[in-house]
Amino acid sequence: MSNAEVLPLLETADQGVEPCCPPLTERAMTAEEAETAARMFKALGDPVRLRLFSAVASHKGGEACVCDISDVGVSQPTVSHHLKKLKEAGLLTSERRGTWVYYRVEPSVLAAMGRLLVAPAAV
Amino acid sequence: MSNAEVLPLLETADQGVEPCCPPLTERAMTAEEAETAARMFKALGDPVRLRLFSAVASHKGGEACVCDISDVGVSQPTVSHHLKKLKEAGLLTSERRGTWVYYRVEPSVLAAMGRLLVAPAAV
Repeated sequence: MSNAEVLPLLETADQGVEPCCPPLTERAMTAEEAETAARMFKALGDPVRLRLFSAVASHKGGEACVCDISDVGVSQPTVSHHLKKLKEAGLLTSERRGTWVYYRVEPSVLAAMGRLLVAPAAV
Repeated sequence: MSNAEVLPLLETADQGVEPCCPPLTERAMTAEEAETAARMFKALGDPVRLRLFSAVASHKGGEACVCDISDVGVSQPTVSHHLKKLKEAGLLTSERRGTWVYYRVEPSVLAAMGRLLVAPAAV
């Protein structure tokens, strides 16, 4: 079972997902947009969390369990804590299969965050 | 005078600038890469800072002074404090002209951060 429907940066649409916010260069964000997007940036604003996020994102098949990504120099409980934070921020989804919980990056979340950071075509 | 040369996510090259880090989905980041990139994400992980950043990024001519972007519901000293933090993180450059300090987003920084968040072509 996926929990993609609770991702805060996205709204489900018939043709897929749409990001909450325009590119940062397009117009000043509203307070509500900034609250949503800042939560996701903050989740990536910790070096260990960022390494874990990239470890999940780059893992074979696009998903990983704690057992796969324990080589970032912190204990397994700390890894689990950070993965939970990333999940709470809407950056990862999770699914329990047997003994392990598998984490996956929703590509549409990456795309939505990437869209925020699009540089203008001409300044 | 520009301070673009101190931007931590970028390395100056003959043909322009290169981002420090591969897309998050390409491989697990090293500790050093994660330190650099996390600093920038953390700077955007505050709603007020994110609004200020988007206000500068979307302002006419791609730059703004404190006098231009004081409508985010915090005092001018607080605005200045947050702009300083964004500058320290390498997201903004600044230039004093007369009375005011003007802030500018380096488009290549946006591009470098956006590249980090590129979703894989096929998962």
